Amino acid sequence: MENYDVIIIGAGAAGLTAAIYTCRKKLKTAIITLDIGGQTMLTNHIENYPGFDLIPGPELMSKFEQQASKFGAEMIMGEVELIKKKKIGFTVELKNKETYDTKTIILAFGKTARRMNIPGEDKFFGRGVSTCATCDAPFYKEKTVAVIGGGNSALEAAELLTQFAKKVYLIHRRNEFRADEVTIEKIKKMKKIEILLNWLPEEVKGDKFVESFTIKNAKDEKTLKVDGVFVEIGYELKTDWLKSLVNLTDSGEIKIDERCRTSQAGIFAAGDVTTVPFKQTVISAGEGAKAGLESYKYIKGDTTAIDWK
Amino acid sequence: MENYDVIIIGAGAAGLTAAIYTCRKKLKTAIITLDIGGQTMLTNHIENYPGFDLIPGPELMSKFEQQASKFGAEMIMGEVELIKKKKIGFTVELKNKETYDTKTIILAFGKTARRMNIPGEDKFFGRGVSTCATCDAPFYKEKTVAVIGGGNSALEAAELLTQFAKKVYLIHRRNEFRADEVTIEKIKKMKKIEILLNWLPEEVKGDKFVESFTIKNAKDEKTLKVDGVFVEIGYELKTDWLKSLVNLTDSGEIKIDERCRTSQAGIFAAGDVTTVPFKQTVISAGEGAKAGLESYKYIKGDTTAIDWK
Repeated sequence: MENYDVIIIGAGAAGLTAAIYTCRKKLKTAIITLDIGGQTMLTNHIENYPGFDLIPGPELMSKFEQQASKFGAEMIMGEVELIKKKKIGFTVELKNKETYDTKTIILAFGKTARRMNIPGEDKFFGRGVSTCATCDAPFYKEKTVAVIGGGNSALEAAELLTQFAKKVYLIHRRNEFRADEVTIEKIKKMKKIEILLNWLPEEVKGDKFVESFTIKNAKDEKTLKVDGVFVEIGYELKTDWLKSLVNLTDSGEIKIDERCRTSQAGIFAAGDVTTVPFKQTVISAGEGAKAGLESYKYIKGDTTAIDWK
Repeated sequence: MENYDVIIIGAGAAGLTAAIYTCRKKLKTAIITLDIGGQTMLTNHIENYPGFDLIPGPELMSKFEQQASKFGAEMIMGEVELIKKKKIGFTVELKNKETYDTKTIILAFGKTARRMNIPGEDKFFGRGVSTCATCDAPFYKEKTVAVIGGGNSALEAAELLTQFAKKVYLIHRRNEFRADEVTIEKIKKMKKIEILLNWLPEEVKGDKFVESFTIKNAKDEKTLKVDGVFVEIGYELKTDWLKSLVNLTDSGEIKIDERCRTSQAGIFAAGDVTTVPFKQTVISAGEGAKAGLESYKYIKGDTTAIDWK
């Protein structure tokens, strides 16, 4: 059985940055993950990651990954099923029953895209229903699409889709958006976008592919002829399997302090999976760095990080 | 009197990133600061800021500043003397008696370099004694210098100085360094560097400029002929003036939670000035982003940041 100093679960901005930091401390580090780059991969362009005026999400994540690899992080593709606490350290068990021993763990596996849970959504997923505009927008040249949601990712998805589609419905259940003001203003000026506020999704219909999308509100119901439905309503946490190990909030976020420590000594958490509420690359990166350095301190038995005191 | 939504005190990685985020939320934002770029300016090269393989600190900070300016952050050069709590919001008073009203405040003014507090240090400060190797190393071509300290910045200073000086003493009060293992190994191989462990600084002597540096331990004392003394023993906090406003630790750090909230509603803190123990650009940037987004939430009266819930 392989023995690690640190096992990081998840390879988004938080996990990859944690690895940069643990590897630079010469800790034997593995990242166990289902994919590389996390939610940032789904971002068309980022203009608020300090240091880059404008960079596509996948390009930024590729830089993160190369840095982590350069310093020696091992990548293990797979899904963690179980973490067992031992007298000293932990055993991590994967779905394929491989196991790894480790002194510390950093939980950084983020969130997964939330679904609408309406009829037709699953049937047409991947055949017109998508949670990733960045991935799928180019398939909708001269088509009509609907975007569901009211946050930054929904508005950014709508904006991106105008570059391909001939018409974009932007549908939100509330009477105002929750995105950046600059983004809202930009969206409102775009002629291809029709904004529909106070509407709820009802059903996706079609034959082989999506053909229509029904929405409703308290008084009314209507069916839009669309070729695609982009679901941009946030993310959900898969942390149930951890609840005997670390404290979670009611909504499933892992509780951390300002130093990324969980309620379990030796287990740290960083990024979207934690009580830090913002889904931002630079925040996840910063949190990952903290978790990495706290792991090092934990292994060394240190309680202070400041020299000459 | 000018009215702001957010006043950020300090323009290092934390303050500049906070400004990027508040400005993108269309909040009227001013940064009050004594200098731009903070401690990152003193870093010769950074290889652990995710996204850049290797970048000089000043170049990275210049990118941060340009991004903050692009989105509309106002820069006010000056030192804050006083923060007064009003019924709603705060008044910030500068040393020059200018005042500004603001709804929220982000404290991000970092730490200042710690001194040795030994005879001769003040007298020769700027005349051989320095706290910034990046700034002053080029003045020591073919000279002999001493570096005091055992953390990353001390070792990095020593490494940088080998490019100019003919000999570098690296002096640390403990019997081992507290820097990254990779950096320690690199330093140990450098022939120009002589490592002196378990020695304390005693006195700096000279005429117009530094000529010698006396160090001591329990048994012994010796005087090194040097032309420069680089003090790299960490940083100290100047937060005494805030203690009636926000909770501080015994060592003066501003206590924050994982969302950068202080004990005072409407006042947030980010970066080196807080209980987050690590002096790292990416961590300060992440903390600044959080503080910026929390300010926005506070102003909007929001308690949740997740859409569609």
